[in-house]
Amino acid sequence: MRMSRLFLRTLRDDPSDAEVDSHRLLVRAGYIRKVASGFYSWLPLGVRVLQRVSEIVREEMDRAGAQEVLLPIAQPLELWERTGRDTSYGPLMFKLEDRKGTGFALSPTAEELITTTVAGEYTSYRDLPVNLYQVNWKYRDELRPRFGILRAREFLMKDAYSFDRDLAGLQVAYTAMFDAYGQVFSRCGLTFRAVKAQSGEIGGDTSQEFMAVAAVGEDAFVWCASCEYAANTEAATRRPTPEGPVPAVGPRTKVHTPDLPGIDEVAKHLDTSADLLLKCIAFDVDGELGLALVPGDREVNEFAIQRALPGRSVRLFGDADFAARRDLPKGYIGPDFAGAAVVVADSSVRAPHGWVTGANETDHHTTDTAIGRDFTPTHWDEIVIVEPGDPCPSCGAELRIDRGIEVGHVFQLGTKYTEALGANYTDDAGEQHPMVMGCYGIGISRIVAAVAEEHHDDNGLRWPAALAPYDVHLLALGDVAPAADSLYSELQAAGYAVLYDDRDARPGVKFADADLLGVPVQLVVGTKGLARGVVERKVRASGERDELQLDAVVPALARA
Amino acid sequence: MRMSRLFLRTLRDDPSDAEVDSHRLLVRAGYIRKVASGFYSWLPLGVRVLQRVSEIVREEMDRAGAQEVLLPIAQPLELWERTGRDTSYGPLMFKLEDRKGTGFALSPTAEELITTTVAGEYTSYRDLPVNLYQVNWKYRDELRPRFGILRAREFLMKDAYSFDRDLAGLQVAYTAMFDAYGQVFSRCGLTFRAVKAQSGEIGGDTSQEFMAVAAVGEDAFVWCASCEYAANTEAATRRPTPEGPVPAVGPRTKVHTPDLPGIDEVAKHLDTSADLLLKCIAFDVDGELGLALVPGDREVNEFAIQRALPGRSVRLFGDADFAARRDLPKGYIGPDFAGAAVVVADSSVRAPHGWVTGANETDHHTTDTAIGRDFTPTHWDEIVIVEPGDPCPSCGAELRIDRGIEVGHVFQLGTKYTEALGANYTDDAGEQHPMVMGCYGIGISRIVAAVAEEHHDDNGLRWPAALAPYDVHLLALGDVAPAADSLYSELQAAGYAVLYDDRDARPGVKFADADLLGVPVQLVVGTKGLARGVVERKVRASGERDELQLDAVVPALARA
Repeated sequence: MRMSRLFLRTLRDDPSDAEVDSHRLLVRAGYIRKVASGFYSWLPLGVRVLQRVSEIVREEMDRAGAQEVLLPIAQPLELWERTGRDTSYGPLMFKLEDRKGTGFALSPTAEELITTTVAGEYTSYRDLPVNLYQVNWKYRDELRPRFGILRAREFLMKDAYSFDRDLAGLQVAYTAMFDAYGQVFSRCGLTFRAVKAQSGEIGGDTSQEFMAVAAVGEDAFVWCASCEYAANTEAATRRPTPEGPVPAVGPRTKVHTPDLPGIDEVAKHLDTSADLLLKCIAFDVDGELGLALVPGDREVNEFAIQRALPGRSVRLFGDADFAARRDLPKGYIGPDFAGAAVVVADSSVRAPHGWVTGANETDHHTTDTAIGRDFTPTHWDEIVIVEPGDPCPSCGAELRIDRGIEVGHVFQLGTKYTEALGANYTDDAGEQHPMVMGCYGIGISRIVAAVAEEHHDDNGLRWPAALAPYDVHLLALGDVAPAADSLYSELQAAGYAVLYDDRDARPGVKFADADLLGVPVQLVVGTKGLARGVVERKVRASGERDELQLDAVVPALARA
Repeated sequence: MRMSRLFLRTLRDDPSDAEVDSHRLLVRAGYIRKVASGFYSWLPLGVRVLQRVSEIVREEMDRAGAQEVLLPIAQPLELWERTGRDTSYGPLMFKLEDRKGTGFALSPTAEELITTTVAGEYTSYRDLPVNLYQVNWKYRDELRPRFGILRAREFLMKDAYSFDRDLAGLQVAYTAMFDAYGQVFSRCGLTFRAVKAQSGEIGGDTSQEFMAVAAVGEDAFVWCASCEYAANTEAATRRPTPEGPVPAVGPRTKVHTPDLPGIDEVAKHLDTSADLLLKCIAFDVDGELGLALVPGDREVNEFAIQRALPGRSVRLFGDADFAARRDLPKGYIGPDFAGAAVVVADSSVRAPHGWVTGANETDHHTTDTAIGRDFTPTHWDEIVIVEPGDPCPSCGAELRIDRGIEVGHVFQLGTKYTEALGANYTDDAGEQHPMVMGCYGIGISRIVAAVAEEHHDDNGLRWPAALAPYDVHLLALGDVAPAADSLYSELQAAGYAVLYDDRDARPGVKFADADLLGVPVQLVVGTKGLARGVVERKVRASGERDELQLDAVVPALARA
């Protein structure tokens, strides 16, 4: 494509409403244009990227055995009323009426329609399993659309739905989709992890969110760069501290620590550090007193205490609890407090030193408090809130905490929709059962933004080769049209999609636009180089430059 | 694709609401399913056909220099209010409001948005021309949706919009689109013609409709199978009757013809035929009396009279005109009526015989009325309504009249939208002008139906190879799985898209489904053939059958 003809005007200034880099750069580079809040047009470069993502998704869905369908975008509201989701979506759903007053909804997702569709065709156990997907526009009337196409009101989504005889079948379908999603996001060049998730409006049981690591993400999550481990901050844990030799600890000593409002003040007063103090956090466990023990520099994870005490009901003490329990010296509780029925210690409390702890007496602490000698936890577990640098529970590498953009979501729905809508099958004994369903979404337009978030620098976008609107950006500088035209033809004949800057513009404008648009490889044809029979290659992502012989550009690119 | 896994259930019975073959067969063969009146789901086979049509359209648009974009489906109503088209579309337009009460319309077309989009990027004569297209769902709230996807309320459409500096540029863009449309419809296997048309809601000047010949079409049109000529019935004309030698006609004779209510009765009474009588049709032309002369077996075309009298205003006489003009003997007017200011004769009135005409006296005709001797027209032209078998005005072959499905439409819009929406450019002298615009639509989902209308028989669909969901339909009959599986793999490896009927079903079921689905080539692997090392090939369109050596199927297909 010659840039002299491409429908493109790059912008020097950031759009006033752009809060994040992907939005700012996709608008400046002429990939998208805002039409209304949360509604965008895709200009030629944007369409090409969107189509490449769509094709990757289709390939991986097909490979995983899913079959493509297309459902109406405007769907009868009556279908949504049958499951009550018109109400649960509430104002998030765009609704309209036709000329006869029949209600329609603009599909935010399509469980209801796909379920009645499958129920209309399939009735026997021999028909199952089946997995159907579509790539189509979806609608959510977000209260605060923002970040450009990252949280739009109209967005392109791939939604797949599996139907199986039983949970074992669902598990197979779910795993196939999970694996296919990994392929999709890898091919798109995203750094991502799958995170167990709450399932929100869709409903159901097990579900996992695929989070692309991005500073502008809506939710923080814990992940390991060395393995697949990831979890949301509530569920995240770290590798247990191994049991070491019992440390030699001096005699326990009570010290006076009045008017010291926090851990850091106590540590300073005692000329030690917060990580050598032991926090004793009171909680209620089925009406009894529990204590959670973590080092003074860490926060306790209430969900982790709950997981450490399965089948029991855990709640951290609040002001009312302390007020009701006058024997507890708030702020001065020690791990040996006599009234504690349960004492859960984080494995890191096995540190090779004595602890400074509350003395179970207001305004007093004790030093050199030793495990085994001075206190004995009833439970050991991992109960601190994970922090960056903690060891990965899976591989031991340092954990990271980042924000993430949800680019995909897989759900085990079970029979919620098939029961509500009568999608049953007859088994080999003639008995009827509801089909067992899963649903699987990928935000295709959102991936474009997520990739732009991960792959850019101050100068512009840096597309991974698999998503780039063009493979090669050919820049003609000065009076080089015959040579550049010829190279343009040669590259196209070799199968490359080439963006050819043949405009009558200054080199600085062409360089700036090339970096802004973000095609992976730039080839610069200039008068000086031509005199020497070479063109310059610049790899956009790394900034690396080298020279290629003009008569051997195609073989050189093929080697890259 | 193995049919044992394909999401497909063919239906034995026609859907109760199917009035036309394409609807009936596309539903029975499992390509589409109705969701609501005018809203359809596309099942896997249907999606494949829809995508093949879309790809053909994209290829031809790209080849013609158009660039693909994607505009929102839900568009701000305010845009439509600026051109008044929210009102002119009226109830045909689906409208909705977001949670803040902002109005949106589901796009029936996109002149407004594309015009503001181009105006937002382009301002100079150097920027033009540009032609942008999209393939996206469109909406029209039809009063009577019918014929399945032929007149749906949600439909897939390609809409393109060209922007030029002047009318000469528009003409170039329009011609390029016109030619591309011919390529698209030819590649889709449609018999079609371009017909000059009224432009309806879109507005503007010149426009042409591409009509696919089909008995179920909404409008009749005249066309030539031997050349490109086509016209709607109002505009159609036929090759002029050549001037021959002046016939020898006997003396003119007045005869009494009372109580004969029509041409046929007069002819019978006089023992002649209707084509030897001359109809004299009275019309008003700028307040004067005109007569139109056509043979008695033909109807006069009022629009053709108008075209024969450019710059004047023509209107056929009605009852009130006859009542106001008592001197006119209605039913007995002759071509030599003294009060006629204008006499327009069809060229066929130059026939080599005298005419039976009205005698300008109630209840009387005259026989042997001769041109030149007894009457002299003031104008000669082609003014009969064309009938099948008339000679083509362009090549002389026999014209046909058929109904047509509008599958495409090209418009020269001019400056209607660019003026209303301020899409101006500055010329090289610094002066501002509105851009000159064209718009070009193709009904992609409608093409699927139009092709099904043209390509089917009593047993089912017969897809042209370019649109078929699969290239080859492989049928395994009996205990032949190893050989059929192997052939399936071999065909796929050779690049064929194969639908493989590996189901545990009777041969009759498989044959019937194969004919119903309409894949162009059927390959039947049966036990008897296998014993002889052959498979049977059936060409769906022709019904031709032959045998192919099992070990040379791929080369044999390649030769076809």
